[in-house]
Amino acid sequence: MLDLLDENRFQGVVLNAGPSLEYLFGVPFHLMERPVLAFISASGAAAMALPELEASRLVHARTEVTPFTYGEEPATWAAAVAEAAEATGLTSGRLATDSRWMRLLELDFVRAGVPDVAVQAAHSLFDKLRVIKDEEELSHMRTAVQIAERGLLATIPSIRVGITEKEIAAILVENLLREGSDTAFPFSPIVAAGPNAADPHAVPTERRVVEGDVVLVDWGASHDGYYSDLTRVFCVGEPSAELQRAADVVLEANLAATAAGRPGVPAGDVDQAARGVIEGAGLGDFFIHRTGHGLGREVHEAPYIRADNDDVLQVGMTFTIEPGVYFDERFGVRIEDDVVVTSEGVEALSSMDRRLLALEA
Amino acid sequence: MLDLLDENRFQGVVLNAGPSLEYLFGVPFHLMERPVLAFISASGAAAMALPELEASRLVHARTEVTPFTYGEEPATWAAAVAEAAEATGLTSGRLATDSRWMRLLELDFVRAGVPDVAVQAAHSLFDKLRVIKDEEELSHMRTAVQIAERGLLATIPSIRVGITEKEIAAILVENLLREGSDTAFPFSPIVAAGPNAADPHAVPTERRVVEGDVVLVDWGASHDGYYSDLTRVFCVGEPSAELQRAADVVLEANLAATAAGRPGVPAGDVDQAARGVIEGAGLGDFFIHRTGHGLGREVHEAPYIRADNDDVLQVGMTFTIEPGVYFDERFGVRIEDDVVVTSEGVEALSSMDRRLLALEA
Repeated sequence: MLDLLDENRFQGVVLNAGPSLEYLFGVPFHLMERPVLAFISASGAAAMALPELEASRLVHARTEVTPFTYGEEPATWAAAVAEAAEATGLTSGRLATDSRWMRLLELDFVRAGVPDVAVQAAHSLFDKLRVIKDEEELSHMRTAVQIAERGLLATIPSIRVGITEKEIAAILVENLLREGSDTAFPFSPIVAAGPNAADPHAVPTERRVVEGDVVLVDWGASHDGYYSDLTRVFCVGEPSAELQRAADVVLEANLAATAAGRPGVPAGDVDQAARGVIEGAGLGDFFIHRTGHGLGREVHEAPYIRADNDDVLQVGMTFTIEPGVYFDERFGVRIEDDVVVTSEGVEALSSMDRRLLALEA
Repeated sequence: MLDLLDENRFQGVVLNAGPSLEYLFGVPFHLMERPVLAFISASGAAAMALPELEASRLVHARTEVTPFTYGEEPATWAAAVAEAAEATGLTSGRLATDSRWMRLLELDFVRAGVPDVAVQAAHSLFDKLRVIKDEEELSHMRTAVQIAERGLLATIPSIRVGITEKEIAAILVENLLREGSDTAFPFSPIVAAGPNAADPHAVPTERRVVEGDVVLVDWGASHDGYYSDLTRVFCVGEPSAELQRAADVVLEANLAATAAGRPGVPAGDVDQAARGVIEGAGLGDFFIHRTGHGLGREVHEAPYIRADNDDVLQVGMTFTIEPGVYFDERFGVRIEDDVVVTSEGVEALSSMDRRLLALEA
């Protein structure tokens, strides 16, 4: 990380609770109304302002870090932040942060404690830090994918006429836990039946499955801080010709995107491969999102698989491939896999059948 | 809310995805790398910049809001933010925000889209907006408490010698779902056995329960956007005299705090009531956190029940009462209830036995 700092002319880093802090120190902290702020200088010195009652956790940190703890009175918190900044020599200049996690709450404490510091977003720095997964990280992700697949397989028999989306989601979560997922899920599963599947980010409702419904399940599991994120589609009863065709096109797009990925190729090319198939089938207007996103300690991270992204794929990057088509108030289809870039191309971590599966009504 | 704005001399409000936005518009949005930003003027005009693929959700909004949608190219997002600000006339001046949710990511988009706007933390405004719960909100919270209690009761038979903390947590989550919790849990349950219970924010581990262990469970359920948050303690086998005494003192502190709460009393008095009992028993040094925190759409919100808080309790406020004592590397005890302020005092929403329960080893 220190090279990256230098390259970007930052004096150091300031991070609040979140995946980048967790990645660097190996200990989890939750976002709360009490600030947790780590300062890391370009020479590698690290200090952290944190609540007294969280301090014992730092025993397990994998990097040496000097704690500056505070008690329950908010009036004293800025002083602890100032001490942590001073201990690392970071009392002025530009500090890089992970802007997807740094909140105004912590920014105000930094401003109060070390007013001469400017905290700036450094997407590319934190993206680069975490974008290449090593063997240990990949092993956690493979496990998270396997847990997810076993969890959904165990849930399929429950997908029948009369059950609600919420009930399916609850059974799925139970099965994911039984199969070994950590309780810190990547996200609450999406279970969307019939017209609800037309919303890519639908939330499970009390809607009961009726015959002919598509049932879209977008779900994931968690293993030692790493996530999986998959989508499969079912039909309760026989699919209409239109639904079957949409599913066939999306599956072809999924496979085309997977075939297009390899080291040295821009992320945008993977998007274009999926988009080309869907546009070729005349459904381009209904593919309303990018083809995928990076996956790891966050559900969405670099590399983003969208048309305008010319970042080049490298061995060890992990991302989703999830083309979909959405027909307002009628139905939607998405097929999502998790993949890793290898020297040969792109390897899918997920192996479950990708076809639209017709279930007994 | 508009009175509150005026009182604080803000020109308007800007909110990103989070509980305050959800409270005002009645629709949920997730925090992601794509900004969702709502602008609300002092006259009540509302506009929102959001991804195209989330726009259909606004059909269900309970307040009229003009959408300004954007596609997948980040370079176009600031323009949508500028349009939303312009539509509400908020292109300069001070805008209030909820700093526990507003991130540097969104702040940078506001800065790019409407550079003459200053976004400022307005804790007290959003606290006031949401701190008094109406009957419907209380009804959701009561349900969330009942689900949590039934879920834990169903889990108790599994708490035995040889089971791991993680396994207990997974069984508990299954039971919470089976009892009707929404899958969007307030937090992952804490299950901490033996010395692990000395960390108030412990994360479940592979530690297996051994005879004589205290097992501390801090858990909650979710119902229609509202949370419960409870803690109970068990002993597998007979408790040591020391553990039993700690549990007795903490229970007495819990009851004293509950008895101290009523409309017109400062929040700090509730903390002092619990603290007085624990200090009187000579255990004051081991009660290392505040007595509680507000609860509702967030796990931690106003009112904070800590010694230096002179905010006055009012009918309809909801918070936790959770005194505890922690003995490093040995054990910890906490007993937590959720309460609502009524005209008569404080009513506990939770009714499950609060005593240390000894289980068969």
